[in-house]
Amino acid sequence: MKKIKIGLGARSYSVFIGTEILNGLPRLMDGVIEADRVAIVTDSLIGGLYLESLKWGLREAGIESCEIIISAGEEHKDLATIETIFDNLIAQDWDRWSPLIALGGGIVGDITGFAAASFMRGIPYIQVPTTLLAMVDSSVGGKTGVNHPRGKNLIGAFYQPRLVAADVGTLKSLPPVEIVAAMAEVIKYGMIGDAELFDYLETHLEKVLEADKTALMHVIARCCEIKAAIVEEDEREAGIRAILNFGHTIGHAIEQAGEYRTFRHGEAVALGMIAATELSHRLGYCKGDVPERLKTILHRAGLPERVKLSPADILKAVKIDKKRTGTQINFIFVDSIGKAFIKPFELENYLDKLTQFSIFR
Amino acid sequence: MKKIKIGLGARSYSVFIGTEILNGLPRLMDGVIEADRVAIVTDSLIGGLYLESLKWGLREAGIESCEIIISAGEEHKDLATIETIFDNLIAQDWDRWSPLIALGGGIVGDITGFAAASFMRGIPYIQVPTTLLAMVDSSVGGKTGVNHPRGKNLIGAFYQPRLVAADVGTLKSLPPVEIVAAMAEVIKYGMIGDAELFDYLETHLEKVLEADKTALMHVIARCCEIKAAIVEEDEREAGIRAILNFGHTIGHAIEQAGEYRTFRHGEAVALGMIAATELSHRLGYCKGDVPERLKTILHRAGLPERVKLSPADILKAVKIDKKRTGTQINFIFVDSIGKAFIKPFELENYLDKLTQFSIFR
Repeated sequence: MKKIKIGLGARSYSVFIGTEILNGLPRLMDGVIEADRVAIVTDSLIGGLYLESLKWGLREAGIESCEIIISAGEEHKDLATIETIFDNLIAQDWDRWSPLIALGGGIVGDITGFAAASFMRGIPYIQVPTTLLAMVDSSVGGKTGVNHPRGKNLIGAFYQPRLVAADVGTLKSLPPVEIVAAMAEVIKYGMIGDAELFDYLETHLEKVLEADKTALMHVIARCCEIKAAIVEEDEREAGIRAILNFGHTIGHAIEQAGEYRTFRHGEAVALGMIAATELSHRLGYCKGDVPERLKTILHRAGLPERVKLSPADILKAVKIDKKRTGTQINFIFVDSIGKAFIKPFELENYLDKLTQFSIFR
Repeated sequence: MKKIKIGLGARSYSVFIGTEILNGLPRLMDGVIEADRVAIVTDSLIGGLYLESLKWGLREAGIESCEIIISAGEEHKDLATIETIFDNLIAQDWDRWSPLIALGGGIVGDITGFAAASFMRGIPYIQVPTTLLAMVDSSVGGKTGVNHPRGKNLIGAFYQPRLVAADVGTLKSLPPVEIVAAMAEVIKYGMIGDAELFDYLETHLEKVLEADKTALMHVIARCCEIKAAIVEEDEREAGIRAILNFGHTIGHAIEQAGEYRTFRHGEAVALGMIAATELSHRLGYCKGDVPERLKTILHRAGLPERVKLSPADILKAVKIDKKRTGTQINFIFVDSIGKAFIKPFELENYLDKLTQFSIFR
């Protein structure tokens, strides 16, 4: 089992990555969260697979548990679902000291985190991510939230979990397409923060795609370490944390323009990373082999390379994006593999040239 | 003008108390919040009185402003109003750096603070309290939130403002009954934290009730100082901050049992303080003159001394109260004037004896 510390003063916590973690959660809670009851928030699919194992471990440790089953899917990531969780907690006379456990992917984690942030002005919560995407991305760093009809994650809070417990055993049941989509975020960490991770992926990509436990644990731990270093420096995204959004400005826009149905988050991020890297190259920020190496590994991972949208459609969707300062966007460019930087940029002025980018061809 | 610093590390801010503050807000914002636009959240009554003055000052300083008019009243302090604010902000392409200004009483402040806490994971906000209650209580300390049909303030966040600007000039237009209700909280600060303030009130009560500016500024500043010291020690109410809830456990229950229509918040708190002090006396924690002095000054202030509810009704309402740990309540008792303490207590076991208390007679 690997343990990564997220150092945020009074809000510090550990990320555990390993196997047999689900039924051993109380051992990890020991000394971190004192609770005699927990509420597990999950969806029916993930709940059907892992709820019993999680509850068994809790029961053995003398911790009562109940479950709140929410509807899966981005379309239910809204305030109505948050209210459902509140109603459940109130019906059970919930108190400020008993934690929520988010069992599932990024959507369950984001919803549960925001419910925990807002119930009684904040109650503890534990992330138990069951997807690769949630393990490397959303379950660490305290970004929680739900969507507004006019934009993704517009409602939310920075609110750190007390513990993250990632059981790579749960990835066996993940559809291969989800592993592929998550690889976009994994590759992102290589692009923005670690040339060695990028090299490792170029060499061991197949092992990761096959869900080999050793390769997965290495990759997940490395991603969490990179994210930890960034979040520790800038918890509330006042500056450098925005670097984690590499590929996301255009990625989110692609997701939104497709009404979250055309592409998975990771697939859209892959397309966004290609665009951001090609833009970096056009502006002279990086050499030509950088977009080529990126496109090659994304292709090998099985990620999409084309989108049926015009740059104008994308710009329209970008405009609601929350990273916008006035008319400029804080855009993340690539310098070399493993090194990225943030720079305000007028995407609008570049609209014509975007049509030449490979993702639109 | 008085200035009180709330020292909370990176979340520190100042409370300004004075006159001519409304139209001079940009001067106070200087060096604290850089913004070229602000959104003022207010209700139609307060907006009608003070919006123009506030907007004039902002305009003179080159700061654009728009207003979001919400419905006044506890019954609109809910997630639906929060969504209205979000919709307004999104319609105006709001960004993460432009602040909200809460212009009004405690309800407007609590709603605006929670909207700021949850929009884009947190945007800056400024409290401009226009009621005595908001000046001494809700606008300082970062408690924000809205009600759930089953309980007050069950949904919310700890989220500090960047600035609090209290213009005592606005208290002239406050109905005398609101000054009276707020006096319950002012007297509370004397009871829990400052025998000198209590003495001052015993001597100068009439001046305060007449809204004499010098007396008001002294009293408001002293209340904010007492609150600041407590909040600095325990921002998120893990311990000592609960002492600010003196009179509130039973007070909230009285408000809730009366569906927030029978009593104003301060009136309910006055009744709650009497009950808590009589309970303290019965349990031998304080001498007999303490409840007597408290009842005398509350009576002089024009606050209620009786409630038409049974202890059983109150207990039922207490049960949903968020300060409950298991079956026990963290109850605030009085030791002497100016000194209170928190102790877990089984109110249920004491139900019979409560009927003898003066508020139920």
